[in-house]
Amino acid sequence: MAAIKAHGSLISTATNRVLVTLYEKELEFEFVSVDMSTGEHKKDHFLSLNPFGQVPALEHGDLKLFESRAITKFVACEYANKGTQLIHQDSKKMAITLVWMEVEAQQYDPVASKLVWELGIKPLVGMVTDKAIVEENEDKLAKVLDVYEKRLAQSKYLGGDCFTLADLHHLPTLQYLLGTQSQKLFDSRPHVSAWVADITARPAWLKVQAMRKKH
Amino acid sequence: MAAIKAHGSLISTATNRVLVTLYEKELEFEFVSVDMSTGEHKKDHFLSLNPFGQVPALEHGDLKLFESRAITKFVACEYANKGTQLIHQDSKKMAITLVWMEVEAQQYDPVASKLVWELGIKPLVGMVTDKAIVEENEDKLAKVLDVYEKRLAQSKYLGGDCFTLADLHHLPTLQYLLGTQSQKLFDSRPHVSAWVADITARPAWLKVQAMRKKH
Repeated sequence: MAAIKAHGSLISTATNRVLVTLYEKELEFEFVSVDMSTGEHKKDHFLSLNPFGQVPALEHGDLKLFESRAITKFVACEYANKGTQLIHQDSKKMAITLVWMEVEAQQYDPVASKLVWELGIKPLVGMVTDKAIVEENEDKLAKVLDVYEKRLAQSKYLGGDCFTLADLHHLPTLQYLLGTQSQKLFDSRPHVSAWVADITARPAWLKVQAMRKKH
Repeated sequence: MAAIKAHGSLISTATNRVLVTLYEKELEFEFVSVDMSTGEHKKDHFLSLNPFGQVPALEHGDLKLFESRAITKFVACEYANKGTQLIHQDSKKMAITLVWMEVEAQQYDPVASKLVWELGIKPLVGMVTDKAIVEENEDKLAKVLDVYEKRLAQSKYLGGDCFTLADLHHLPTLQYLLGTQSQKLFDSRPHVSAWVADITARPAWLKVQAMRKKH
């Protein structure tokens, strides 16, 4: 098995997306902390891993990858028979999972990320939350979660009967929003609420949370 | 082969992304026009294809899919041995292609789509372009294209030596920006400019352009 190095920052949602995937696949890896407070992600060494200067990046033997959702897909395919199955072999089932992976990336994440910034990160770094942005994005998130509620009434997980990357990709932003005023949007929808409780309790995710507390 | 119906609108970049993929794969399909001017995409029939009420949607036999990038990935995998190879079989090559597919979705598209709206769509429908939004997003696009210029100096296409979905996904937004003031951002970067000329001249893309002119 190739040596795996995951470069990133534990406050970064995209980094956490990669870490939980590595834990789900029961892979040995080295976590290399990138100090964003000193701009390490904009320096030459890191730019050779990701020319956009954003965490995370993954080294897998001599293969260098970036963009969290590309890394998770590669890991899920490369280690298909190790740890949790995060994708499907069946092409129809995989097609449905692909749809909901794109829903996360295109419908959920742009809205959730703005709320994470306003409600999760800004208070941490002493900046003032913009209430108008919060209100606008909570309205948008409510509409997305209305669709999720219907989907999860028919299917235990977004991508089908099993936990897949379509669910996993939500974990980091979801965790930031729990404990903020936006939690009500999840709690008020019974199927969404059960899904949140299920996926945030996964051992692989608890390991990422433990890493965050230790640092 | 399953009967394929592509539902969408020819002014929609996401619809064009699906159509060019079907042409690259040399597949027979029926195009079902969705009249967005009368809100057809928000009516029950269309919502049963895509609960978010957005074009496009694909019917492939009894399989119903939405989100353009999920549809293109499914089509590229399902018909791997037909028409143009749009993905790689080799896992390392595919990993690199996945990275650049995510770059399109996460770095390029959010910026390019805002410019398409301001410079491509608004003038078509008699709305006024917001110059401040254009300026902000042209600055961002320039930074993304600086990374593309370096990448395309090393590699003929974004995903590697061959044209793949990583390039194809750019076509619809790219085409809208050619002929607007933003074209200068592509023209001023020689490798980007050669790549734009190459991919916009592909026969499959010319077929989509011809469909748009006919309607």
